Amino acid sequence: MPGHQDGASFSRGKHTHTVPMSLHATNRRRLCESLQSNSQVGSEAVVLLQGGDDVPRHCTDVSYLFRQESYFQWCFGVREPEFFGAIDVDSCKSILFMPRLPQDYVIWLGRIPTTDDVKKQYDVDEVHYVDEISDVLKAAKANVLLTLVGVNSDSGLTSREAKFEGIDSFKVNNTILHPEMTELRVFKTPAEIEVLRYANKVSSEAHKVLYKSARPGMHEYQMESIFEHYTSKEGGCRYTAYTAICACGPNGAVLHYGHAAAPNDDLMLDGQIMVIDMGAEYHCYTSDITISFPVNGKFTPDQRIIYEAVLKSNLAVQKAAKPGVLWPDMHRLAEKTILEELVKHGLIQGNVDDMMAVRLGAVFMPHGLGHFMGLDVHDCGGYPKGVERSTDPGLKSLRTGRVLQKDMVITIEPGCYFINSLIEPAMKDPVKSKFFVPEVMERFKKFGGVRIEDDVLITEDGCENMTQVPRTVADIEAIMAEGRA
Amino acid sequence: MPGHQDGASFSRGKHTHTVPMSLHATNRRRLCESLQSNSQVGSEAVVLLQGGDDVPRHCTDVSYLFRQESYFQWCFGVREPEFFGAIDVDSCKSILFMPRLPQDYVIWLGRIPTTDDVKKQYDVDEVHYVDEISDVLKAAKANVLLTLVGVNSDSGLTSREAKFEGIDSFKVNNTILHPEMTELRVFKTPAEIEVLRYANKVSSEAHKVLYKSARPGMHEYQMESIFEHYTSKEGGCRYTAYTAICACGPNGAVLHYGHAAAPNDDLMLDGQIMVIDMGAEYHCYTSDITISFPVNGKFTPDQRIIYEAVLKSNLAVQKAAKPGVLWPDMHRLAEKTILEELVKHGLIQGNVDDMMAVRLGAVFMPHGLGHFMGLDVHDCGGYPKGVERSTDPGLKSLRTGRVLQKDMVITIEPGCYFINSLIEPAMKDPVKSKFFVPEVMERFKKFGGVRIEDDVLITEDGCENMTQVPRTVADIEAIMAEGRA
Repeated sequence: MPGHQDGASFSRGKHTHTVPMSLHATNRRRLCESLQSNSQVGSEAVVLLQGGDDVPRHCTDVSYLFRQESYFQWCFGVREPEFFGAIDVDSCKSILFMPRLPQDYVIWLGRIPTTDDVKKQYDVDEVHYVDEISDVLKAAKANVLLTLVGVNSDSGLTSREAKFEGIDSFKVNNTILHPEMTELRVFKTPAEIEVLRYANKVSSEAHKVLYKSARPGMHEYQMESIFEHYTSKEGGCRYTAYTAICACGPNGAVLHYGHAAAPNDDLMLDGQIMVIDMGAEYHCYTSDITISFPVNGKFTPDQRIIYEAVLKSNLAVQKAAKPGVLWPDMHRLAEKTILEELVKHGLIQGNVDDMMAVRLGAVFMPHGLGHFMGLDVHDCGGYPKGVERSTDPGLKSLRTGRVLQKDMVITIEPGCYFINSLIEPAMKDPVKSKFFVPEVMERFKKFGGVRIEDDVLITEDGCENMTQVPRTVADIEAIMAEGRA
Repeated sequence: MPGHQDGASFSRGKHTHTVPMSLHATNRRRLCESLQSNSQVGSEAVVLLQGGDDVPRHCTDVSYLFRQESYFQWCFGVREPEFFGAIDVDSCKSILFMPRLPQDYVIWLGRIPTTDDVKKQYDVDEVHYVDEISDVLKAAKANVLLTLVGVNSDSGLTSREAKFEGIDSFKVNNTILHPEMTELRVFKTPAEIEVLRYANKVSSEAHKVLYKSARPGMHEYQMESIFEHYTSKEGGCRYTAYTAICACGPNGAVLHYGHAAAPNDDLMLDGQIMVIDMGAEYHCYTSDITISFPVNGKFTPDQRIIYEAVLKSNLAVQKAAKPGVLWPDMHRLAEKTILEELVKHGLIQGNVDDMMAVRLGAVFMPHGLGHFMGLDVHDCGGYPKGVERSTDPGLKSLRTGRVLQKDMVITIEPGCYFINSLIEPAMKDPVKSKFFVPEVMERFKKFGGVRIEDDVLITEDGCENMTQVPRTVADIEAIMAEGRA
């Protein structure tokens, strides 16, 4: 690829990770190689992407803090809004198009960078202005523009296709690029893995602070605040990867608690177990970690039963996850492990294979075992053409149905929840009711839930857990005691 | 107005402020009274507003944390997305329309509230589902729907007009409502003032923590993090009112520093002065406070000159601001005070009135003196029909050109900046150059700037400063020393 400068990078200071811009050059090279070997792509094709814009809060002049669109970030690592980017598929030459900023930008928003500044900052081959796209692409004799149109399999939303003044005079193909980029994003490069490890390390440390800080009488949102403070101040992470879930007691049975209508505002009570699912992002690379612990620092016998069942499930999957393994099988393994433990402790009874056959596991764990993670917390590529989504309870919630391969990054997050709206009907269901031991189940009615979530990298022959937080009952009680000392 | 429940309120726990939902009932009553006396409004008119929706981050399934649209918030105080609201103008009867949530909401997002729950939570007269709007309004014999269409004078963006299935069969007027509501929002009620005081108190306390925490060698974003942590954890404020500006040294001369392309990532150096402009919001009511201080805790003589000039300016305006005073005159007073001080200390020379005549003040303070503040940090209503925006430097940046009146809440935020892109041309300008003393100005080339911003309530005969932070050089040095002890 054309010559690149040394040292162009993103960092939030010496105590943080330095992300070399060559990470994005590598991604672009992978993309070009892939497109070059795609028989649908003719010669002189140019990839054209439009970066994100600022999003105002309703009709006001306050914007949400800008966060780059992930496909654009993958290619260019540009932290600011209103850019376009092009990549010549044959030569891998990279071009950024920057907005032409108004004269008074310098007063309100800062020094106006030159095209040369931007070229150095992002280590691309050329930089022009957005209003020059048409001329530049014509001069480059672009034969066809490859634009990004495709559906995100988690949100159902379609990516925004690049549009510029004059695009009508170009031939445009908007079907090739999305599956190509999506597939490449599934497999992480060494440089990307370093950033993911960093985001994970910072978030792991922040979760340790939460273990130490939790006390009965605090509000759930105070845990959110402590986490964000640590990851921002100590880790330089200005963004979280998703809305914080800080759920104590019964709230733990609400899988995506923490949103605007359930804003982590309950009091944390003595005797409750708590589920905290938070992850920071760095240079848009995400993390996604869940810890579960007793608010007062000591597991009750019942809390220990559920916690250790989920931990056993998590560890079983970590042991089994490796290239060649089908992810839905890992989901079944996680479920089965939990069901076996629930039988052992008398909440349910009967033959576990029979339970599996009627999807009893999905009553206790209605969500999927885990999902790809990268530039998005629910990363793309879970259901490429040919991979079908199951329609069975639990399995249908899996965000991927793929066979694991080296360099995938995926979360392992089994959980066990007491969701009355699932358990009550199941206890009345002709095929499921026989498995329940009602008098024992009764004890768990207001329990909430437990989830234990790690982020792992699939390696040659297994997986590497990037998440490093205390996980056993003994270790959690020890760190919580340490926080109270 | 129809009977209201006791006790419906918003709060984030006992250590935070309790906002009674009657605040919004009062707003609705004010709106109805105003519309009843508007001759353009016939009988059986119904106000119809659409609340905000979740905003996804690009095409992913992660959303920005939902924040209610401000006009809707003013009327209803609803913290969750996808609501509509109606108010019968004659009777002031209030109706909320809630989204019909899918069955599995309970698993992922929490208990599905009944219409009765929502009625109690927000203390309105009726609650129906969004898909019932048309039927409910027909049954209510709504003669005309008043919808919200108008331009925000700060952003230039137009409000989103309510739209629902079946609206075509109603008569709609979309011109009356926006100016009416905008004007009412300018004048704060006692209950609103209590919330604004609370957001200000929490933010003031957080700024005190910043005074104590600042050290050379920290990164600017660490100040952002400390502030947000305090206001969230101690104050229950989950949102900030705008993107944090934490600018040390020359960055202080970039008025809206802190955005994605200038993300508060510089090192804070010994000898620099720092400008920190941050405010938390509570129940969507905002605050907006700026402190300026030396990073190392001790003002240099030059820093003291500029700081005290700006403080004098701030205090002069606080003393003069009262009902009947024209806000642009306050801007001129602020400028004049600063110019006088700069003359006194030899940065500029000559007759201050002559300087004012050529708008020299705008070279040092290109922004407006202050703006209305309420449910938006730059609150609406600054330029109603009949109030013209000046075209003069500085004055044209004022977000209001109005005469002050009781119950307005406005920021007083004079600043003095050394913005080379303004000063260099001014020093070469035939009419302005004579005022500068180049050898003294030279000392301030990399100074940055100072801004001192308070939020005040206009009272019967003056103003009340809601912002309570150390402001004198002595007090700032004392609290910074305390933080180092």
